[in-house]
Order: sequence, then C-alpha cells, then structure tokens
Amino acid sequence: MRLVLGLCKVAAFTFLIFTTSAALAQNVILIIGDGMDDHQITMARNYLHGAKGLLTLDTLPVRAAVQVVTLDHNDPSKVVYVADSANSATAIATGQVTSRGRISTSADTDSDLKPITVDLKNAGFAVGIVTTASVTDATPAVFMANVAQRFCENPDMMVQAKIGGNWYADCEDDLIANGGSGSISEQIAGSTIDVVLGGGSKQFAPMAEGADLTVLEQAQAEGYVVVNSVQALEQTVSSSDERVLGLFSPSTMPVRWQATGGVAAEQPEPSLLNQVHEYLGDVTLPAPVKCEVNPTYGDTPPLATMAQAAIAQLAKRSNKGFFLMVESASIDKQSHARRPCGQIGELQQLDETLQVALEFATTNPETLILVTADHGQAAQIIPNNSLFNGYGVPVYTPGRLQRLVTPEGAILAMNYATNEFQAEEHTGVNIPLLANEQGQGLVPSFLLQSDIYGIIKNYLLPETP
Amino acid sequence: MRLVLGLCKVAAFTFLIFTTSAALAQNVILIIGDGMDDHQITMARNYLHGAKGLLTLDTLPVRAAVQVVTLDHNDPSKVVYVADSANSATAIATGQVTSRGRISTSADTDSDLKPITVDLKNAGFAVGIVTTASVTDATPAVFMANVAQRFCENPDMMVQAKIGGNWYADCEDDLIANGGSGSISEQIAGSTIDVVLGGGSKQFAPMAEGADLTVLEQAQAEGYVVVNSVQALEQTVSSSDERVLGLFSPSTMPVRWQATGGVAAEQPEPSLLNQVHEYLGDVTLPAPVKCEVNPTYGDTPPLATMAQAAIAQLAKRSNKGFFLMVESASIDKQSHARRPCGQIGELQQLDETLQVALEFATTNPETLILVTADHGQAAQIIPNNSLFNGYGVPVYTPGRLQRLVTPEGAILAMNYATNEFQAEEHTGVNIPLLANEQGQGLVPSFLLQSDIYGIIKNYLLPETP
Repeated sequence: MRLVLGLCKVAAFTFLIFTTSAALAQNVILIIGDGMDDHQITMARNYLHGAKGLLTLDTLPVRAAVQVVTLDHNDPSKVVYVADSANSATAIATGQVTSRGRISTSADTDSDLKPITVDLKNAGFAVGIVTTASVTDATPAVFMANVAQRFCENPDMMVQAKIGGNWYADCEDDLIANGGSGSISEQIAGSTIDVVLGGGSKQFAPMAEGADLTVLEQAQAEGYVVVNSVQALEQTVSSSDERVLGLFSPSTMPVRWQATGGVAAEQPEPSLLNQVHEYLGDVTLPAPVKCEVNPTYGDTPPLATMAQAAIAQLAKRSNKGFFLMVESASIDKQSHARRPCGQIGELQQLDETLQVALEFATTNPETLILVTADHGQAAQIIPNNSLFNGYGVPVYTPGRLQRLVTPEGAILAMNYATNEFQAEEHTGVNIPLLANEQGQGLVPSFLLQSDIYGIIKNYLLPETP
Repeated sequence: MRLVLGLCKVAAFTFLIFTTSAALAQNVILIIGDGMDDHQITMARNYLHGAKGLLTLDTLPVRAAVQVVTLDHNDPSKVVYVADSANSATAIATGQVTSRGRISTSADTDSDLKPITVDLKNAGFAVGIVTTASVTDATPAVFMANVAQRFCENPDMMVQAKIGGNWYADCEDDLIANGGSGSISEQIAGSTIDVVLGGGSKQFAPMAEGADLTVLEQAQAEGYVVVNSVQALEQTVSSSDERVLGLFSPSTMPVRWQATGGVAAEQPEPSLLNQVHEYLGDVTLPAPVKCEVNPTYGDTPPLATMAQAAIAQLAKRSNKGFFLMVESASIDKQSHARRPCGQIGELQQLDETLQVALEFATTNPETLILVTADHGQAAQIIPNNSLFNGYGVPVYTPGRLQRLVTPEGAILAMNYATNEFQAEEHTGVNIPLLANEQGQGLVPSFLLQSDIYGIIKNYLLPETP
C-alpha cells in the first residue's frame, strides 16, 4: 500500500490527510447547498467576488440542470411542483421519489427506502455525513435513517408532538415498541456511519426509547467518540481512527454573517398618499446595510474544517475509499428567515468546503466531487432602481426587501415575496449540479434529481445491480 | 460545390433548404429566450411535458451558466445587478458591457460598439435576425443598429418623445441631421442584414428623416423584399434569393396562449378577519385556470416557421455560411404582464425553433447552435399548498398568483411579486447557455455574457483579431 500524504489548511486548523493509494481508493464528495438555486449563487458571487468575479464552484468543468420531482402526499400518482429538503434529499440518497416531509420512506405506503450509504458500508466504503444543520435535520437524516416524518428527530417527538399551530410530528409506526427503528437521533446512534458532524446536540439528550440511556450515551455505547468542540474534533482525528459523532450546537449551527445590526429584510413603507393611490406619494425603502460577523457565531467550527476532519478520518477508516455528504444548510434556512447575509456567509462556507475537496482530489484523483442543491428558495435579485423609474411613480416590492452595499460599491437588492408568513416558501425551479473532471461523461447536462443516486452508485459500485 | 438537400417540416409550412457543402459552410444559430431563466424553463417543462418530461432544450449536451454584467448609467465604473434586454443583448452582440437601455452604444460616452454582424457580413457570411417582438425591439436591434436609447425605434421617437409618465425617448445625437445614423427602423432599412423577420410594421410607417419616403419605402429602395404574411414569406423564399424584411404585426407579435378567459395573475383576497390579523380568517386564492389558444393569435407565423424560412434564405445567400439570431421575446413580455400561459406558449415556440435548428444541423453538421437568455424574469414557481399549511393559518403570496391546472393533473402555482406596478421587474439571476455537440470544447461551464460574442466569433471568424 502506497501512502499519499496530503496537507490541507483551512480556517484555523490543519489536518494531515493520509490516504491509501490513489489507484485503489475511490471517493465521492457530495456537497449539497440547501436551497442553493441560481439566484442564491448569483447573490453570493456578486457580494463575495463582484459581478465579474468567480466562486470556486464557477470553476468546476461539468454543469447540469436537475429537475426536482415530488409526489403528492395524499395521491402519489400525482406530482406537486415544489419540494422540501426531506423528499428531495431522499431522491438523492435512495434514487426514489417521495412526498414532502419523508425521510427515506415512500409516499403513502411508508415503506423504507434504502439509502446508498447501506450498500456503500456493506461494500467496505467509509461514510461520513457533515452539516451546518442538526445532524437529525432532513438532508443529513435521509442518509442515515428511515422515518415517516422529518420532525421525528428524537424519542420525545414521535407521537403527537406539537411543532406549532395545528402541526404535529407523528411517527407512531416507527416506535421501537411498534417494530420500527425509532427516531432519527436513535437511528443515527445505532448506525454504522463512520463520521457524523454538525449541530443538534439537543436531539441526543432525551432518553432512548425503552432504554436507561440517553440517545447520546447510546451512541457512545455503540462506539462513537463524541466531541463538542473543534479542538476535541482535531484531537480525535489526530489520535484515533474511531467513529466520530461531533455535535457543536444544540440545533442548527450559528451562521457566519448577519446584516448590520442583525436586521432581516423588511417591507417598504409607502406614504399615506401612496396608500390612497399607487401612483401618488412616495415610499421609504429599508436603508442599505452591509454584511458583518454574526455575534453568536463565536467558535463555531467552519463547515470546511468539519469537512476536512471528516475526510481525514474517513480516509483512515477504509482502504477502498469513502462517501462524504456535506450540507451547507443555512442557504435555505436564512432564505426562509429573509436574511441574505446569512445566506451569503453560508454559501461562502460551501465554497471553502469545495476548495478543501478539490485540494484533496489533487492528490487523490479518483475522487468524484458533486455540488448540487435540493430545491429552490425564495430570494430574488431585483433592481435597486426599478426598470420603471422613468414613469416617476413609486415602484416597490410587495414583499420584504434588503439592500446590501457590496464591497464593489453597488447595491444588491434582495426580494423575499413568496408569502407573508414568518418564513418564506421553497420554489420549484430546477437547480444546478456541478462536478469536477471525474464527472465528465458521468453527469449528463440535464437529469432528474433521483438520477444523482445512480451517478454515485455507478462511480463507487459499478458492478452492483 | 456539393448541394445538400434538407427537407424541414414545421407547423403548416415546408421549405426546401439548399445548402452548400457541409465541408465549406459554417453556421451559427443563436436562439435567445428573452427573460428565460431556469424558473421560466421549469414552468414550461412542467406544463408542456410534465415534471418528469423533457423539453428539446433539455436534450442539448452542453450546459453553462452565464453571469450578466450591467454598468451604472451615471457612473460606468460601477455595476448594477439587474440588466435589461438592451444592455444584455449588446453584450452578446458586441462583447462589450454597457448600461441599461443602450443599443450597441457604450455607457456614458455613447460610442458606437460594433455588432458581430458587421464583421460577419464583411467576411461573406449571410446574416438573419428573427424575433416575435418588433424587429426594432432591443434584442434584435443591437445586432443591426447603434443608438443611445432603446425607445428610439422610429424617426418620430428621436427627440423628447413621450413613453409614459415622466419618461421620454431622447436620441438627439443620433439624428441624421446631427451626424448620427437615425432611428432603429431607419438603420435596419439601410442595413446589409439579409433576412429580418418579426413584428413592428408601425415602426416603419413614419417618414424617414430628411426623405420623401417612409422607412418601409426606404427599405424597399435599399433592396428588401417586404412581406406581411406567412404565405408571402413562403412564396418569396421559394422563388427568390433577395433580401427579405418580414413584418407580421404592428408591434410585438401576438402570443400563442393565454389563461382561461385571458386572465392574468391576481392578488389573493384575504378575508376581513385576516386583514385584522394575519393569523385569523382565511384567504380566497384565484381559481385554477388552464392554458388556451389566444384568440388574437390567428394566422401569426410561428417562430419556428420564420426561423425555417430564414435558414432557407440565408443558406441560399452565402456559400460561406450564416449567422442567425432568433429571439423568443414574449417569455419576458408575458412575465412582465404576469401571464404564465403566454410565457409557456412562447417557450414552446422557442423549443420548436430549436427542433428546426437541430434538424438543419443533422445535414449541416458544422452548425453551432446556442440557446441562451438575456436576463432573469420575475415569475417563480411556489407551492400550491404552502410548506406551512400545518400551522393552520392563511399563508399566501403578497404578490400576484396564477394557478395552472397542468395536463398531468397537478396545480402549478406561479408567483409574480417583484413590484406592484403595471409590469414586473427583471431579476439578476445568472442564466443558462446550452449548445449542441459543436459547442463542446468551445463553451465553458461558466462565463460572462460578453464571452458569448467571442464564442461566435471564434467559431465563424477564427483568424480575425
């Protein structure tokens, strides 16, 4: 066995990455930007690098469009045109389309759908799941668990557990007492996944069903080394080849950036006269802001640091190679919350993670890197000066607006207008899929989301039916 | 010279397409879907072919993302993040970035920028421009004219000509009397372009500046055969190899489809109780509709028919090859007007045109086909059933909504919410570029819009500096 020594540096930490011979090990690094459609990418490019600049993901040589297919919850013979992260990530993880809210289970019939990670582990690959969300959140969960409903994240959320309004989590059939596999956190604790890193420690605090241990204690009993800080993560990866469960925040990890003073997008304020008639009076738009460090970010591990630690550990745990899914979750969550700076800082984290993956691939060329989204999001770039200003009447969005002063000195106007509720909707736009050179010939220019499963399988398990 | 005989059939008409030897003739067919970002494409795919279906453009093997760059009108050292068709098409036609509203002229300094058509004509290529808009509209105009402002479409619109509100067209420096080249229609009449087909006859009706002829009479005097019906177009292309100016409607050509009864997207109507508090009462959404034939469409020539006639005539007019730009204009115009069926029928026209181009390329393999947009548009696909329905409170868009019953029996909810004015805004999203096999190796996965100019130039004029 030939040892290849790669030295990757990102953020504050450096990990030595030992891999087996490039001729033997084959790896897939799948990076999912949750909600990362072309609007969210363009917004980040404009802010981070300027309108003529390049994100790292812009340098990937292979590009495709992905059509997201979602089944109707009540009548799975019909489609619906807007997904959530649960059904869209299930399509990627299992190759099967399902209805919103489902974690690798089928629409209506609630059958378990086998995630690709099962076959990969059986074939001897190491598997890692990394996210800035709770590790029990929909996108990571579909790779590690089967459950009827995404909100059944821990043993206390299994039966008539209130989420809000008239909305309840209900996964009674998944109770261990009823022959099921338990909640998402319990299934992670009992899984064979090698590395699980992200937020969501609160989902591991309850007592496991029918046991005298918390879910976290159960995970430790099953062989996971549990870490809660980047220092502990670094130490574990440097000194051990054990399985690692890293939980760095109670739920979603804090995002890197916020707008000046923490303000979200706001509704323009029309004058009284304008409220009488749309062609009269004027409108006050929210004042332009900049992106600044989110004060709650603190010593949160950067996504790229977590990904780098995962790569280092996975490379130690299998000579055959590994599959690593890395999710940048808050592109979506901050769009729901109408916070473009949160989205941009999170997309920057994704782009740094891609840089880590590309550096690894330079010394491990049989590494397929895929970057995609799961569904579209609400944020739109609209003109700061309306196309219709020439008419001399107030023209403004009926939604929420945030105007960012970009480092190149222009104003980037972001619109959030899919609803008036406390959180925006997803959208049904097709989404990008990018790949490094290893994707040439494997990734067609247009595909269904469930085809991504086949691309990964064909790369790592070409002889499996 | 080897004659290649191709027989193309589309819509009601059949043209014999004679071309010179494939070894000699090189062609570029550039198809621009105005406003055709991924949302508009996904909407059309869902309606026309179902969520799991394929548009013809989905079958193209090369895909890229295009970043649109626009300069600030007042300070061209700065960018703005949302384009109009004038500056974005100027980038494609000239390789130069400029400010909104400019027709192949530079931001601030108002210098003429040379469209690629000039070099192509000088090198012996035939050139055709086809559109469903007025041929004087921004996208076609930039390939045929240089003028300070897009609304200077005819001799009567050159000096302080009112458009609406406080908005005036003003191109005084472009007056022939002031040493300029006149209005857009006058420049087309005096151009060397071989085939010009579309709407806009009213722009050719005024008297040409300083002449005793209308602009149309001037075009005829310059050698254009003028046709006004698809029958006359067919007859001319069948019997003559003259230059053709086809004007099939007074301004924009009628679109193929409308929603039931011609209704546009409408605002949801909250109940009185919901107006008191957003968590109370309920909301009435606009009733679902279908797409139906637009009664004013009549015998309007389909875009594919115009494109096919143009290809036939261009192939006769040069042994060297041709450049044809075909614009599907009303994807944009019908999004401004909040009319998804108009958009979908127009995108169907683009897809049929692509089919014609692909058929031509089967017998003329040295034909590079490019399909792209100029900028993003407002329409978004949002959930018909909100992601937050579980809360049991009314959740609806603050913008305009149209819900289409698709042929596969689901409801496609389209949201228009960039402003509350009579027309929606463009958006700043990066846009797709697709190409046939000839584009492999020529089209990178990510590019600036102005790079499209270089791709066309490198293909047809590789030795020109």
